[in-house]
Amino acid sequence: MALVEERKSTTLSMEELTRFIYAHAYSETPLERIREIREKMAKIPELSLTVNRYYDTREQSLKRALLFGNAWVTMIKKEKLNHEELQIAYENSFELTAHIAHITFFVPSLILQADNDQLREWMPLCETMEMVGCYAQTELGHGSDVRGLEIQATYDHLSKSFILHSPTITATKWWIGALGCAANHALVIAQLYINGTCYGPHPFLVPIRDIKTHMPYDGVDVGDIGPKIGFHSNDNGFLRFNNYRIPKKYMLTRFSKINDTGDYEIIDPNSIKILYLSLVRARLFILADAWFPLSSALTIAIRYSIIRKQFADNEKPGTEKKIIDYQIQQNKLFVMLSRLFAFLFVRVPINNMYFKIEKEVTSGKSPSLDILHCLVCLYKVYASSKVLEAIETCRRACGGHGYSMLSGIPSLYTTFLPKVTYDGDNNILSLQVIKYLVSLFHKKSPKEFAYITGAKITPTGDVHSSSFQQQCFMAVAQYKVNRVNKHFQELKTRFTKEKIWNSLLQVEGIEATEPVFHAHIHQCFIDTIDKLPNGTNKDALECLRKIYVASEIEKYSGILMNCGVKYETFETIQQDSVHALSLVRPNALGLIEAFELKDEALHSILGRKDGDVYNQMFQNVKTQNPINKTKVLPGLLDYLRPKI
Amino acid sequence: MALVEERKSTTLSMEELTRFIYAHAYSETPLERIREIREKMAKIPELSLTVNRYYDTREQSLKRALLFGNAWVTMIKKEKLNHEELQIAYENSFELTAHIAHITFFVPSLILQADNDQLREWMPLCETMEMVGCYAQTELGHGSDVRGLEIQATYDHLSKSFILHSPTITATKWWIGALGCAANHALVIAQLYINGTCYGPHPFLVPIRDIKTHMPYDGVDVGDIGPKIGFHSNDNGFLRFNNYRIPKKYMLTRFSKINDTGDYEIIDPNSIKILYLSLVRARLFILADAWFPLSSALTIAIRYSIIRKQFADNEKPGTEKKIIDYQIQQNKLFVMLSRLFAFLFVRVPINNMYFKIEKEVTSGKSPSLDILHCLVCLYKVYASSKVLEAIETCRRACGGHGYSMLSGIPSLYTTFLPKVTYDGDNNILSLQVIKYLVSLFHKKSPKEFAYITGAKITPTGDVHSSSFQQQCFMAVAQYKVNRVNKHFQELKTRFTKEKIWNSLLQVEGIEATEPVFHAHIHQCFIDTIDKLPNGTNKDALECLRKIYVASEIEKYSGILMNCGVKYETFETIQQDSVHALSLVRPNALGLIEAFELKDEALHSILGRKDGDVYNQMFQNVKTQNPINKTKVLPGLLDYLRPKI
Ligand SMILES: Cc1cc2nc3c(=O)[nH]c(=O)nc-3n(C[C@H](O)[C@H](O)[C@H](O)COP(=O)(O)OP(=O)(O)OC[C@H]3O[C@@H](n4cnc5c(N)ncnc54)[C@H](O)[C@@H]3O)c2cc1C
Ligand SMILES: Cc1cc2nc3c(=O)[nH]c(=O)nc-3n(C[C@H](O)[C@H](O)[C@H](O)COP(=O)(O)OP(=O)(O)OC[C@H]3O[C@@H](n4cnc5c(N)ncnc54)[C@H](O)[C@@H]3O)c2cc1C
Repeated sequence: MALVEERKSTTLSMEELTRFIYAHAYSETPLERIREIREKMAKIPELSLTVNRYYDTREQSLKRALLFGNAWVTMIKKEKLNHEELQIAYENSFELTAHIAHITFFVPSLILQADNDQLREWMPLCETMEMVGCYAQTELGHGSDVRGLEIQATYDHLSKSFILHSPTITATKWWIGALGCAANHALVIAQLYINGTCYGPHPFLVPIRDIKTHMPYDGVDVGDIGPKIGFHSNDNGFLRFNNYRIPKKYMLTRFSKINDTGDYEIIDPNSIKILYLSLVRARLFILADAWFPLSSALTIAIRYSIIRKQFADNEKPGTEKKIIDYQIQQNKLFVMLSRLFAFLFVRVPINNMYFKIEKEVTSGKSPSLDILHCLVCLYKVYASSKVLEAIETCRRACGGHGYSMLSGIPSLYTTFLPKVTYDGDNNILSLQVIKYLVSLFHKKSPKEFAYITGAKITPTGDVHSSSFQQQCFMAVAQYKVNRVNKHFQELKTRFTKEKIWNSLLQVEGIEATEPVFHAHIHQCFIDTIDKLPNGTNKDALECLRKIYVASEIEKYSGILMNCGVKYETFETIQQDSVHALSLVRPNALGLIEAFELKDEALHSILGRKDGDVYNQMFQNVKTQNPINKTKVLPGLLDYLRPKI
Repeated sequence: MALVEERKSTTLSMEELTRFIYAHAYSETPLERIREIREKMAKIPELSLTVNRYYDTREQSLKRALLFGNAWVTMIKKEKLNHEELQIAYENSFELTAHIAHITFFVPSLILQADNDQLREWMPLCETMEMVGCYAQTELGHGSDVRGLEIQATYDHLSKSFILHSPTITATKWWIGALGCAANHALVIAQLYINGTCYGPHPFLVPIRDIKTHMPYDGVDVGDIGPKIGFHSNDNGFLRFNNYRIPKKYMLTRFSKINDTGDYEIIDPNSIKILYLSLVRARLFILADAWFPLSSALTIAIRYSIIRKQFADNEKPGTEKKIIDYQIQQNKLFVMLSRLFAFLFVRVPINNMYFKIEKEVTSGKSPSLDILHCLVCLYKVYASSKVLEAIETCRRACGGHGYSMLSGIPSLYTTFLPKVTYDGDNNILSLQVIKYLVSLFHKKSPKEFAYITGAKITPTGDVHSSSFQQQCFMAVAQYKVNRVNKHFQELKTRFTKEKIWNSLLQVEGIEATEPVFHAHIHQCFIDTIDKLPNGTNKDALECLRKIYVASEIEKYSGILMNCGVKYETFETIQQDSVHALSLVRPNALGLIEAFELKDEALHSILGRKDGDVYNQMFQNVKTQNPINKTKVLPGLLDYLRPKI
């Protein structure tokens, strides 16, 4: 009811907004096709997960994931989905299950690192999933530091084979997705030894379980690493080798190989760029991946905030106030809504940059990857941390019910959580960003960062304008990075670079990256809105932009005053934002429903499209909760009363 | 090894520090007694939970909790623990299980609300736990707004009984701890109806399950509300009544009753203060409760950061660097360590205030509860949100392994998580705080907040000093609250109070509470350190104070510059903090191990006292993980390969 009314009263042009959104989410796929794929998926029972999965035990969860994965692969093959369509089909999968990991991570890694002969042999097996793979890099003792890996692949020229061995407990591969139960092959990164010399980490495709029986081979110790805060449906696994032999052909030889005389040979010294690019691509995926869980959390929280009423509304006696009508609730939700659009709008520019460079690399050129790498790290860091915070804000905005798995938000949170850690720990990536930015003071800056090393910015113009506000972010970024550079130059006369970046400038350096991120994302926000025709859609997004700015700028007020901005400016920006909240309010539901997320993808009772929250909550708990199968919990009376 | 060396090299006076800490954690209990209770608990197998509990299914988890609770109650009765000792014994319980909830929440609520005759009848049953109770206030439709509760208790004078009824789905009691399986009685808050008139929410003790068989009575629909992000071992439950009759004696009649002629009667109009005080007490408990999970998370993260090495240390060739030696890791952990001490030090002053007022109330006086209520709300809000953030920071500081339940940190997080919501949603409490603070402009401020309505503060003195820094927090608090007051006075001429606090000033008002919190907690920090004799302990804590200030002050730099502080001041404070990190580093382990948390209370492999992290992780997963019981997950091969 409440939802139906709100839908009617929106002033947005919904279809136009949806088109606009999806032009940014999936730039190659028309909206009709996106809708078609989602419809199809919603009709396949194994793919339409319901909230009932939240009752699963770990083992049930693993099984459900396999069933899901199986149906998923069947669908994408049957429908012959292309790369981007695959991403659409991946949206409403719940976690990175074995099949998905195989197709989206393992196979691309293999394609990248294997040579053509190897691919000719293995790709058909990957296609049928007779070969199920996983990417095994991290060990119990080393994650961030890949050079520190301990697992050994020792070449034996006599038998033309490698002996794989895990010399210590810390050498145990750990955390490897899909390894615990599902994979029968692992792309193992191991230290290559030839004649007693170590050549550093290299990739091997290692058969670990029998393709037919799935039994682990002798010399292979493999299993699941146990309970986690999320990712219950993924069998993150461990792997140890005890002098386990594999034929020479299993070394992945696109970049380097062992030649017929048994010597190490680098095939293409420039090819390292390709490897590097694949890392960049994995991180780009986190950005690509961010809008979906955040739009899910917001769909749930905004819908529920319209349905939920709390406290008598003395302005309309006899009624209760919808919680979305409280200013603080609006502030929480609309700040996060503005973040959602910000992260969405940045995708096209970054993707374009990536594809341009990828094209150059694959056509044999050798462009600089630095700026791309820097931006992608920046977005990996802030997309992961800021989206997490946003999901949690949505969860809290649902009050007590947000703590129930049935709300759908906790699992969005725990699934997204490891992104701050994997594909490059956020601290380590931030450090790479600031090191790069500091290096710009000694070479020509790319246009994206020219302002950092350029003339001092003193924000001018109308304080209400996006241009003034953009100058503010840039001024802060400039100030902070310049200060880091100044300190770096001072310290360099006395300390090694290593000492400086490990022990003296890490805190200041990492802190300087956040305004750089804001300056970039806010510019994309401006540019994207600019392209819209005038109208209510544009107005609504401009309101969100103002809300975004207000939520991120005040913490920099000191620096900005140092750059000549008056304190009252922040009060003005704050007032603009508060005013914008009331303008966004009537269109809040429209702004999030323009994403058209389906119930089948939300797995949430609070976020149901029909708004039937309370009935369904009660019915679900009555009929699905295994704890309620018996009237008295078996054994309970034996433990309830202390025997004293 | 690494831990042993660090322990040897600390410059702290450990025993003295421990005494100092526990004088703040448990002001009435000598350290020897605390150690004794912990020792005793560690020896009782059911109470010494191990990490193996993280493998439990929901049902196993409920059973383990009952076993735990049973042993716990047996112990506290056998040892005749007093009130504070009970809190010590409650530390290393994992969640608020049924037995603990019965003793720490239900029984005190009953004592508060029942009259003496009622208590004479029921207390013996509570003691033996023949009566197991829960506190049932929240409904599916109403939590924050207690007046909006729907469940009805209609008095029938003829039969001298109440008819309990849940007229709608939203009237279903929901979220009630220990109700789902364990409780046989519920302290139900229901709307009292007499002769068609509603008298508002009143408390009833309702028998819901048979004491002997534990079967729910006819007319009672009760069960568990299903999966949650944490609290797996608690049977949060739902409850509905279908015209269920209970005798009149079950209305709790300390504050009001129905007299012999069937009329409503208030017993003691002043007694509402007692009820109010009980709310305050529950919130105080969240503060009391905060240091333990945070010290647990920090024990785990600091120990692990000393054991964990990552990246070659080129300054000492052939070795790897301990992650605790990276500046950013220090910043993360030591900021949170400073927070831990801050929250610890504030307990004595707040407790003293509480006990003084409690004494006055129970001795018949009628002191003002306002200032206590305000401070307790403030601390409830910030103890819950800031400690949560701190626990999560510790988790991320452990890299990938922090995502494993076996690290012990995820369950600390999810158990603490609902505290932002229950015992008063944080937003609503913040609103009460700011309303109270604004009211001070029209009456005499209590000494704690006199500065807010007093003369304008312009921080002066040595910027390195605690006194200057305290003036800064006070200046910000003063500025922000005054601004809210100014806006409030302006708006009051045009709008109703309700409109102002719901729709116009909520955001600004709630934001103004944080600096008030900092000003108060930082003053306690200063006062507490002052009492220490000069020496390394005092020096270390003074370093932590500096780190605390730096971590919280920069966001206010704009306001402070507006109050006359120079921008360079913040750079100085930042530099002091960075310097303090390096001074704290050698004593980091000592500072947290002075809390003397036992392995039996940590439930963590990363945080083991013996530092045997990697072996134990591997062994545990090999031997305890049920998924590894079979070499091939049953049914796996049926689902692995898509059939196309
Ligand atoms: C759910 C999940 C799935 C995963 N899936 C896979 C997979 O499929 N395949 C795979 O190979 N791996 C996988 N991983 C592992 C993941 O890639 C690593 O956890 C990640 O690389 C971080 O490494 P680490 O855990 O060793 O952290 P560490 O490097 O040990 O970091 C611990 C702490 O030290 C800090 N630190 C470390 N070095 C520095 C430095 N130089 N300066 C400052 N601070 C520093 C970090 O910031 C962090 O706070 C997965 C992990 C998770 C949680
Ligand atoms: C783990 C857990 C255990 C619990 N145990 C118990 C128990 O044993 N017994 C019991 O009785 N209850 C229990 N509860 C319920 C708990 O007390 C309520 O969840 C809590 O009071 C919040 O109420 P709500 O859920 O109705 O949130 P709501 O009041 O619906 O809040 C939802 C959102 O609306 C916002 N909002 C509401 N009103 C306003 C306003 N006036 N101004 C601005 N914003 C507003 C809130 O800030 C929040 O963001 C438990 C809850 C949990 C999660």
